[in-house]
Amino acid sequence: MHRLTQKILEGHKLSVAKGITAIENDSENASELLEELFPFTQKAIRIGITGPPGAGKSTLTNKLTQNFRKLGKTVGIIAIDPTSQFSGGAILGDRIRMTEIFNDDGVFIRSMATRGNLGGLSLKAKETGDVLAASGKDIVIFETVGVGQTELEIVQASDTVVVVLVPESGDSIQAMKSGLMEIADIFVLNKSDREGANKFLINLQSVLEIRLHDKKWFPPILKTVASQNEGIEQLTQEILKHQKFLEKTNLLTQKQTERYKRKTNQIIENELIKFYRNSKLANFELKSSESPYQKAKEIIEKLNLND
Amino acid sequence: MHRLTQKILEGHKLSVAKGITAIENDSENASELLEELFPFTQKAIRIGITGPPGAGKSTLTNKLTQNFRKLGKTVGIIAIDPTSQFSGGAILGDRIRMTEIFNDDGVFIRSMATRGNLGGLSLKAKETGDVLAASGKDIVIFETVGVGQTELEIVQASDTVVVVLVPESGDSIQAMKSGLMEIADIFVLNKSDREGANKFLINLQSVLEIRLHDKKWFPPILKTVASQNEGIEQLTQEILKHQKFLEKTNLLTQKQTERYKRKTNQIIENELIKFYRNSKLANFELKSSESPYQKAKEIIEKLNLND
Repeated sequence: MHRLTQKILEGHKLSVAKGITAIENDSENASELLEELFPFTQKAIRIGITGPPGAGKSTLTNKLTQNFRKLGKTVGIIAIDPTSQFSGGAILGDRIRMTEIFNDDGVFIRSMATRGNLGGLSLKAKETGDVLAASGKDIVIFETVGVGQTELEIVQASDTVVVVLVPESGDSIQAMKSGLMEIADIFVLNKSDREGANKFLINLQSVLEIRLHDKKWFPPILKTVASQNEGIEQLTQEILKHQKFLEKTNLLTQKQTERYKRKTNQIIENELIKFYRNSKLANFELKSSESPYQKAKEIIEKLNLND
Repeated sequence: MHRLTQKILEGHKLSVAKGITAIENDSENASELLEELFPFTQKAIRIGITGPPGAGKSTLTNKLTQNFRKLGKTVGIIAIDPTSQFSGGAILGDRIRMTEIFNDDGVFIRSMATRGNLGGLSLKAKETGDVLAASGKDIVIFETVGVGQTELEIVQASDTVVVVLVPESGDSIQAMKSGLMEIADIFVLNKSDREGANKFLINLQSVLEIRLHDKKWFPPILKTVASQNEGIEQLTQEILKHQKFLEKTNLLTQKQTERYKRKTNQIIENELIKFYRNSKLANFELKSSESPYQKAKEIIEKLNLND
């Protein structure tokens, strides 16, 4: 076992950061590290928190983290901010967070921006989760604006998915697509002291009842005002309740197995792409008269793929 | 040449829709169709319109389209809406658009939602652009919330990139990352009748001057109020001016060649992944004790990749 692996398993903060950086940079030692850490990644509770921009996900994540800390649980947070490109969100977010939970040794926060992460961000985020889990964090939270495919993939890698909405989302409930309905284990109506909250609640409830009436786990809808710490304790309890439900129904193992299968496939597909990008064939010239389709065919033939 | 190809080249609306659906569904005939259409895809001007949610991109795209129509140009629009998952945006967007430009035969609009599009959305959007170009559209507009990697890829496939901001984006200019700065050929300050517009303008200008002073094309900042049709004519002229600049400096050919190289690579990489997914090896079992890393290694070895 490598020294870095050892140090991460001991929970050494700087080594955890180093390990994550190795993953982000696609360093050579990253895959070996992950392989060594793997047997120790299975204990953490994985929570996905998603919702539209401005729903207050960061604040909610902070308050939830503080609450888990009170229960003696350590927390790792992976914040994926696809809007950072416009707002510098990933950086600003960290600064705001620092003041509240950054100095707590039981919490580790890592922001990942979508920008510049060419390919494989969802795999990297999940692997970062594995590092945090192996370092001994009881809870791993993936927080993301669930607007893109990458973000959805990350959220789906969680055991418990919390979808955060605000009363203003109300207009569009009718149009809300089943995709979101189906991934939510818990709905949170944040900023529920705002006008329209009750109407929103009734609407959402009736839509859910029609769509999900045959589900074994019916997603509860919780009201919170995260900035005031209202409803956070109840959310904590619902998350733990959902975890118990998963354990009892054997769904936790099932989800884990599916997750590992997806991961296996993702590793293989990334390797395939790397194989091509590193091959001499990727270094082709293209004349302005040549068609990309013809060229691609030629190269694929040369790759000589055999089942 | 297939009948569908022929009909698309003639600009037959229903056939265009059929062709795009074939691409979206990964139909068997899609790649053949694209190959046949390819020689006819090079004339259209490709414009990318991006910016944060709520900046008024749809309205701007509509007004711009109406203006291009007045100049006798036909327009194809590909609207990528990653938020549709939450708001049903793709659908609602279409309805609003219908009233203004849907009945115009010189305009073709296609919305693509990120949700459910597992992999390859950016390739599909670009291919949809090719179908529209081949069908004779003079202008092809890619409109997208530039928040994710997929969306950025699509925008970068355009010749002229318009970044739409609003005065409220002002606070975060300092934190704005160079990624966005670098892709913008034209900045639009929409809703410029709102408070803070001038301050925003001055800030943006000074940031740009520091960062881009050595650029051959210095991106202009235009003020618009799209809903009032203000500034649209000027934007139209700036886009055409940028196109002329690209032609004169030979950058248009250069961009096109790069685009074709990227496309070739994307086709090859998609084929590699398809090859694996269709192979017997993808049908593996994973025991709970097995590590995805080990399993992936085994399978990659069996794939027998040789350079």
